[in-house]
Amino acid sequence: MSQSATVDDLVNLARDFHRRGWALGTSGNFSTVVAREPLRLAITASSVDKGQLTPGQILEVDGGGRALNSTPGKPSAETLLHIAIVETRGAGAVLHTHSVWSTVLSDYHAGSGGFFIEGYEMLKGLDGVSTHEHREWLPILENSQDMEELAAETKRMLGHNPNVHGFLIRRHGMYTWGKDLAEAGRHVEILEFLLESVGRRQMMEPQY
Amino acid sequence: MSQSATVDDLVNLARDFHRRGWALGTSGNFSTVVAREPLRLAITASSVDKGQLTPGQILEVDGGGRALNSTPGKPSAETLLHIAIVETRGAGAVLHTHSVWSTVLSDYHAGSGGFFIEGYEMLKGLDGVSTHEHREWLPILENSQDMEELAAETKRMLGHNPNVHGFLIRRHGMYTWGKDLAEAGRHVEILEFLLESVGRRQMMEPQY
Amino acid sequence: MSQSATVDDLVNLARDFHRRGWALGTSGNFSTVVAREPLRLAITASSVDKGQLTPGQILEVDGGGRALNSTPGKPSAETLLHIAIVETRGAGAVLHTHSVWSTVLSDYHAGSGGFFIEGYEMLKGLDGVSTHEHREWLPILENSQDMEELAAETKRMLGHNPNVHGFLIRRHGMYTWGKDLAEAGRHVEILEFLLESVGRRQMMEPQY
Amino acid sequence: MSQSATVDDLVNLARDFHRRGWALGTSGNFSTVVAREPLRLAITASSVDKGQLTPGQILEVDGGGRALNSTPGKPSAETLLHIAIVETRGAGAVLHTHSVWSTVLSDYHAGSGGFFIEGYEMLKGLDGVSTHEHREWLPILENSQDMEELAAETKRMLGHNPNVHGFLIRRHGMYTWGKDLAEAGRHVEILEFLLESVGRRQMMEPQY
Repeated sequence: MSQSATVDDLVNLARDFHRRGWALGTSGNFSTVVAREPLRLAITASSVDKGQLTPGQILEVDGGGRALNSTPGKPSAETLLHIAIVETRGAGAVLHTHSVWSTVLSDYHAGSGGFFIEGYEMLKGLDGVSTHEHREWLPILENSQDMEELAAETKRMLGHNPNVHGFLIRRHGMYTWGKDLAEAGRHVEILEFLLESVGRRQMMEPQY
Repeated sequence: MSQSATVDDLVNLARDFHRRGWALGTSGNFSTVVAREPLRLAITASSVDKGQLTPGQILEVDGGGRALNSTPGKPSAETLLHIAIVETRGAGAVLHTHSVWSTVLSDYHAGSGGFFIEGYEMLKGLDGVSTHEHREWLPILENSQDMEELAAETKRMLGHNPNVHGFLIRRHGMYTWGKDLAEAGRHVEILEFLLESVGRRQMMEPQY
Repeated sequence: MSQSATVDDLVNLARDFHRRGWALGTSGNFSTVVAREPLRLAITASSVDKGQLTPGQILEVDGGGRALNSTPGKPSAETLLHIAIVETRGAGAVLHTHSVWSTVLSDYHAGSGGFFIEGYEMLKGLDGVSTHEHREWLPILENSQDMEELAAETKRMLGHNPNVHGFLIRRHGMYTWGKDLAEAGRHVEILEFLLESVGRRQMMEPQY
Repeated sequence: MSQSATVDDLVNLARDFHRRGWALGTSGNFSTVVAREPLRLAITASSVDKGQLTPGQILEVDGGGRALNSTPGKPSAETLLHIAIVETRGAGAVLHTHSVWSTVLSDYHAGSGGFFIEGYEMLKGLDGVSTHEHREWLPILENSQDMEELAAETKRMLGHNPNVHGFLIRRHGMYTWGKDLAEAGRHVEILEFLLESVGRRQMMEPQY
């Protein structure tokens, strides 16, 4: 995949996710790995409207999160989290969305530090899961504006939970990833579907 | 109907159902009968994104679920359920969707093995129903990864419930069918509408 | 307005309402008055998919509900209700939709024969309402497959409730109307908005 | 920005907001400042369908809310509220939307005169907010048809609450603003997202 195809794919995904309510305002940030040694990422710029994202708003950063070119705009404030996930998981793409259901459930279950999603056929769409008899732990991190601390906390959490496919940040949204942008995008669809399903299931029967 | 028209109709329906949230991730599979003697089905390939489905991802299978041509990709894992429904009901098209409401209600009512949908005008859109004073039983099967067992269970259940127009699989989704793809698609719209209606009705008054 | 413009407007409205979930399956029927003396209506044919409605599926009927031309298809089974509303209210267009919220609330409030919608600014979009300090009664009729009886019941109810802008049929949907198709369409938007608002308001506080 | 670009931007925003359910019927009104000394606003005409808004339905008004040109149509009845906000806050654009969630919550919390939205990352999309550890007060005014009184009440309320980014009118909808139309539009997206999130959060746990 050439780099301009990467940029177009990121732009199309961002616009689609905005339309679906997963990246409203200037929320959400999306990246793909451009090179591994040394690490280079293509990532959405900070504070841009994802519904009108343009190729010029995709920046290239190094493994320390520094912008590599002289394009206007600065990398997303959460670039360090993307890098932490790429380094810990070997991911080829990282997506951070900000839906209503991930926001609501990240707060509702914050006291337990996460919650299980279990027994759903849709779980089979997650990489490596081959049966609905799977118990997926979805960790919840406390939110912070200190990105270095949050990136370190992310690495620690991923070290303790080597099998998770995503996590929530409290009242903030979801992170998931994949070996490439298509797999990461599929993980977003699947986890968002599961969040809405378990949220509505719980509303039908609170003690559930 | 020529076979290429069949393929185009399946592709258009799959993309539309993905857009409406009924076939997210790689979930959902859709088939139409191409020939009866011997049986041949056109069916969506396994593990493909329905939102970007292409004609090349529609495969042709025989009555044992084996792919008939050398196209890349393998038939959906649930092909045997499609065949079980075609054989038991004489259906011309079978649609398996995976919406939030079918997932939630398939779990909420699992203990009763199904539930009734009764007294709704929308029921008249189901083949052979001519009044809202109709009591539609929607059976729920336990989910399984053993497709031969699940297909056999489906046949048994359809034998005991000769009048149903669809059924749910627990935490998995819905199956419905019709004499052709248009009727099967109408049945999806109607059952999804009814599932959302009875789900929201129940949330307004839990003892309902 | 020429008659072909009328037909195009009905087709466009039907497709739009299908897309918005207000006329799924083959539900919903829509009419406009073509002539008054003697009465002639353009109305959607029975049992057609509103999402793919074509001009040829709009039929012309007389004041007794009989088709006037030799087009294939028969008029909607509910043509007599459209005529009852046109005659009682002098409406120029009648729209019958079938949304989830109208279905749910038509059942929830059936015991009271209707319910009030009161104090909402959106009420001002209804013809003749100039303040939010308005109390709109939304009557609910029991559903029936005897259209002559249901049309007579509609006339009686409209006689007793000369100020209503619409009504529900239990577990069936909503009827509203206007002096022309644009006003009737606006009434649908407004009443559907109010139904969802009062429904969600009630779910937040059941004793509300 | 030339004035015709202003008009096109207002038309596009209005149509988009109608599609998203934030300006149904003839609800909603939208303005941008065209000149400051003396004040001139471009504002949507009264009682027009935002889903089919045309450039000719954008009027120009002076600081007293009087139409400046001979275009047909009269300015929105709520023009005085737009002017009150422009004068009190120095806003360059004012947007009044009318969503289900703003309507429901404006009624649910009316007794407290408003409510806090606190701790959500999405708050950072509001102008001047740099951390999720922010407590946004969303005031609620009682609705009125006396626009001079409601405009005066708005000025008083904004005087007492110099840091708010928007407010609700009971059972009526939301007002927000920004230095230009893009910022005001972003504020709508963010506040609508937060309203749906806190509304659903509350439904999961009423004592919340």
